Amino acid sequence: MDKIQLTVRKEKEAEALCLDILNKTGVPDDEAAIITWSLIDAEKRGVHSHGLVCLPRYVGLMRQGVMRKSTQIEVCRNSRCIQVWDGLRSNAQVLGYRAMENAMEMAAREGVGIVAVKSSNHFGAGAFYAQKALERDMVGIVLSTGSPTMAPWGGAERMIGNNPLSVAVPAREQEPLVLDMAQSVVAFGRITNMQKQGAEMIPGGWALDSEGAETQNAGEVYSVLPLGQYKGFGMALIVDVLSGILFGGATGVRADDRIDGPSQLFAALKVDSFGDKETYFREIDKRIQELKQSRLAKNSKGIYMPGEIEYINKEKSKDRVECLPEVYAELEQLREELTN
Amino acid sequence: MDKIQLTVRKEKEAEALCLDILNKTGVPDDEAAIITWSLIDAEKRGVHSHGLVCLPRYVGLMRQGVMRKSTQIEVCRNSRCIQVWDGLRSNAQVLGYRAMENAMEMAAREGVGIVAVKSSNHFGAGAFYAQKALERDMVGIVLSTGSPTMAPWGGAERMIGNNPLSVAVPAREQEPLVLDMAQSVVAFGRITNMQKQGAEMIPGGWALDSEGAETQNAGEVYSVLPLGQYKGFGMALIVDVLSGILFGGATGVRADDRIDGPSQLFAALKVDSFGDKETYFREIDKRIQELKQSRLAKNSKGIYMPGEIEYINKEKSKDRVECLPEVYAELEQLREELTN
Repeated sequence: MDKIQLTVRKEKEAEALCLDILNKTGVPDDEAAIITWSLIDAEKRGVHSHGLVCLPRYVGLMRQGVMRKSTQIEVCRNSRCIQVWDGLRSNAQVLGYRAMENAMEMAAREGVGIVAVKSSNHFGAGAFYAQKALERDMVGIVLSTGSPTMAPWGGAERMIGNNPLSVAVPAREQEPLVLDMAQSVVAFGRITNMQKQGAEMIPGGWALDSEGAETQNAGEVYSVLPLGQYKGFGMALIVDVLSGILFGGATGVRADDRIDGPSQLFAALKVDSFGDKETYFREIDKRIQELKQSRLAKNSKGIYMPGEIEYINKEKSKDRVECLPEVYAELEQLREELTN
Repeated sequence: MDKIQLTVRKEKEAEALCLDILNKTGVPDDEAAIITWSLIDAEKRGVHSHGLVCLPRYVGLMRQGVMRKSTQIEVCRNSRCIQVWDGLRSNAQVLGYRAMENAMEMAAREGVGIVAVKSSNHFGAGAFYAQKALERDMVGIVLSTGSPTMAPWGGAERMIGNNPLSVAVPAREQEPLVLDMAQSVVAFGRITNMQKQGAEMIPGGWALDSEGAETQNAGEVYSVLPLGQYKGFGMALIVDVLSGILFGGATGVRADDRIDGPSQLFAALKVDSFGDKETYFREIDKRIQELKQSRLAKNSKGIYMPGEIEYINKEKSKDRVECLPEVYAELEQLREELTN
């Protein structure tokens, strides 16, 4: 595994830094709080690729007038359990947070609620929104389109994002399950980071060159490979449809931040509407426990449930944030710049 | 690729054979028609693992009194867009067909409809049900639990099914997208078939032995590997929850045909409820076309959409069925046996 060096900061300090930057950019307080919370949460969960590193990009887009500083929403469809929003290129964290709240409101009444948001932006980690459903004993399901990083299976051209899917499942005695996965074997950013740290070669099965041939030469990487070959491409395409084409969201190159922006789908399912809640919690706890206590493979470091490692990271980082030193320095510089 | 020998039969003849067997077993005509249609459809799509080969097992379970010959359903929950059924161990093809119809009815009114079915049976190919949604310009989403074939990531014990997910997406000028995938790199049955045909070795990355160590020795295979490592395990677990634990369905070893049986979830989303239908069809057709027409990888045989190869197979086999000769012979023998 590629080892990364982290710097430790007080959570309050990192939080204040983000809030300050967003304030100075012109983001209203309540919205700055949501954006900050999402980025800090990702850092604490150890998902550095979706944490503080995103902030300079968001601020840049806001200063260029591409991303709205203050969220506006146009409701395009509104039925008992489905809403479709035009996010009007507002900040995706705020859109996503509110969309999930609305999906949960509908699910509280109807058992299921779906809010689809087009013309959004990069929304950080999907788990941030999916996890919200847990507060109300609901399953949260979150999908997003993204800029192309993968070729269709059999193709050479970057045509489709590695479109993440996140699902949060409530449990009681056990920690909830929080799946959050992109449809590629590895994230493009991971290869870029390895390269920045001097790596010239990458493992096989990760990436293709511009001719669509597999490459282990980090410098030749053009696209990342979908997981399970054609299956990951299929999943990415389905996510493209459900969180994009279905309600007029952009896909492919148009899903880029600088063009039409990605779009997202947020769904909540109320456990209560499918059966007896007590039975559910007893069964989900039992299932997680039986999986975790099952016989380990030789040389295995343990059996981890989806989201468990992120949960352990978060538990370990009470009151503090471990983040990439260059990212933190960039934020401090950004604040400086915005102050003058 | 492992080449398989197929025999060609008239579709009408294969159909009559299935209907005859089911009739003689005591299955009502309308139900026998659904089961037969599902199996023939799988054969025509080239999915031999979920075609005629399933029938002797179903008949065996019916004759043992494990699977009901005549479908009965107990409705446990019934709200505007969610129904939960106890399938009372009826035939899963009939349950699934009716469940999808009901999900579509609800979706026609509310935009979304979900029918969850517990105490079901093996339902063949998920695509059979998901595709039904296409008739009414809906997206069909189908999930099923299954008997354990995989170890949890890091584990050695077979604890979880490779729980299939099928999604059908309507298109107009282009063929619809029909994803139908299990969460393992390859199906267990594929390894068994290779072994039957004399193969001793299998490719790397497919399977584990009973100690949880990777093996290429076909005789040592104990579990199949999830696709994308921990990601495929995560997906399998989420499918376990959504098509099982959420509504009291059995999972793990209990999902076995001979114990409590697998359970399934059928959902339909009406395209109309998310936006303008004409825009949707224009955009989905455009998206499929741009993917298919994008630059091919070196030595690529083409870019295929999910379900496209199965569609080509089906087009090629008008009025006839290409199936495994030993499977067809087994069915003829079964009919013989049931006649005496």
